[in-house]
Amino acid sequence: MSNLLQTTIKIRVRFSEVDSINMVWHGNYVQYLEDAREAFGHQYGMEYMHIFNSGYLAPVADIHLQYKSTASIDDELVVVITYRPTRGAKLVFDYEIRKTSDNTLVMVAETTQLFVTRNGEFEVSEPPFLTEWKKKCNV
Amino acid sequence: MSNLLQTTIKIRVRFSEVDSINMVWHGNYVQYLEDAREAFGHQYGMEYMHIFNSGYLAPVADIHLQYKSTASIDDELVVVITYRPTRGAKLVFDYEIRKTSDNTLVMVAETTQLFVTRNGEFEVSEPPFLTEWKKKCNV
Amino acid sequence: MSNLLQTTIKIRVRFSEVDSINMVWHGNYVQYLEDAREAFGHQYGMEYMHIFNSGYLAPVADIHLQYKSTASIDDELVVVITYRPTRGAKLVFDYEIRKTSDNTLVMVAETTQLFVTRNGEFEVSEPPFLTEWKKKCNV
Amino acid sequence: MSNLLQTTIKIRVRFSEVDSINMVWHGNYVQYLEDAREAFGHQYGMEYMHIFNSGYLAPVADIHLQYKSTASIDDELVVVITYRPTRGAKLVFDYEIRKTSDNTLVMVAETTQLFVTRNGEFEVSEPPFLTEWKKKCNV
Repeated sequence: MSNLLQTTIKIRVRFSEVDSINMVWHGNYVQYLEDAREAFGHQYGMEYMHIFNSGYLAPVADIHLQYKSTASIDDELVVVITYRPTRGAKLVFDYEIRKTSDNTLVMVAETTQLFVTRNGEFEVSEPPFLTEWKKKCNV
Repeated sequence: MSNLLQTTIKIRVRFSEVDSINMVWHGNYVQYLEDAREAFGHQYGMEYMHIFNSGYLAPVADIHLQYKSTASIDDELVVVITYRPTRGAKLVFDYEIRKTSDNTLVMVAETTQLFVTRNGEFEVSEPPFLTEWKKKCNV
Repeated sequence: MSNLLQTTIKIRVRFSEVDSINMVWHGNYVQYLEDAREAFGHQYGMEYMHIFNSGYLAPVADIHLQYKSTASIDDELVVVITYRPTRGAKLVFDYEIRKTSDNTLVMVAETTQLFVTRNGEFEVSEPPFLTEWKKKCNV
Repeated sequence: MSNLLQTTIKIRVRFSEVDSINMVWHGNYVQYLEDAREAFGHQYGMEYMHIFNSGYLAPVADIHLQYKSTASIDDELVVVITYRPTRGAKLVFDYEIRKTSDNTLVMVAETTQLFVTRNGEFEVSEPPFLTEWKKKCNV
């Protein structure tokens, strides 16, 4: 059985992130997800620089955001990012965003990243550094 | 048969929209889609202020982006937004983004907007102004 | 003699904030300063909602940024915001941004905010809530 | 006497650029200025890629924004950027932003850019490509 790799971050909604109808502008959530992904990377050794130094970039190839409720200025949000075990040359994450105050579900999302070599070519088979990481993390 | 409602806009990638690996940062595409939606609204009379003055807000409830190729600084992009005929209290749009230079497909996306009254309640049945608009546009 | 009102925040540079030449895009510093101002407001009771509930908005009327050195991905920055005692209907803050790692000075900045009533008119004399706050803080 | 080098661009305020008090968020003007600078560069042959291919980067070292009036959603703004003749290794621009509708002055600003070699060192004397450009433009 594989481990559950999960990271949790807290975000306080900024004044500038709220739009004219007092809700977080929907595009800003993409940044919240990236913040969670970066925190996950730092925790589990899969950060941007590690991928880069292994010879790869990992651009987001697919992102699906489902907005369940709104958030506004000074709300504190909790973003939970979970690694979804998959085969092949990709990284898939699931996300859940809730308000700290009352646990309201604000968003459910998922992202898929593919691997590109530094020459800009898509990697079709699983990169060695990823295989190694999966083994180490038991996922 | 219903009309095809479609708007096309051009976008020149800005210096600040490109990230450290010389690609448009993936979150910026959400703005490009909104730019297309605003242009569509202006063309077909479904702009933000018209919705607002009809007593509603139309927050994005679902957004799905599929990245097919990268774009970089000074690339000119063409965003085509197409209204997808649907029943009920929602607006669904499909998007396609291509490079002007060689027609490369950069992104395929879709968004779904729901309607919220000014009291912040979700509208479950089709708002009258939307019914009227669909009739007028034959969609 | 007046008190020194000062707040310090830490910021980790995000991947998306770095531009194609691997430096924080210069416009993003405006956000860092606002982050510091919000932290200051929370610490000393001069936050956005307090100003708003007192009947005012406090838009930035002047901002001057001097870039002394660059910062890049994953750098940790320390932003120090200091209240500058002034008379009349305004708020003036000085800022200094340094790298945590080696204390390099990255930026020196200042902002001036004026007060606008909810009817959108500029307030020329010191708002009562500001007089009270200055007294309480001894500034 | 030197030529007056000036470029004018139009900007329509986007929904996402307006904050919760219905004004363009003050940080967004930094982008408007960069948009004007990019248009100036394309018109007069001083664009980012020309500077880069000449062996330099031209980071913004100083930016001073004075907000004179507010702008809101769907306002059309006119940004006028003017090259300020100066000696030495820098580029200085003055900006004026007005509303198209009634010519209201929204902002006055200036930026100073310095030159950095690709090795990351500040250039203290005027780069040859800049001398040549000044001659060609008679500024």
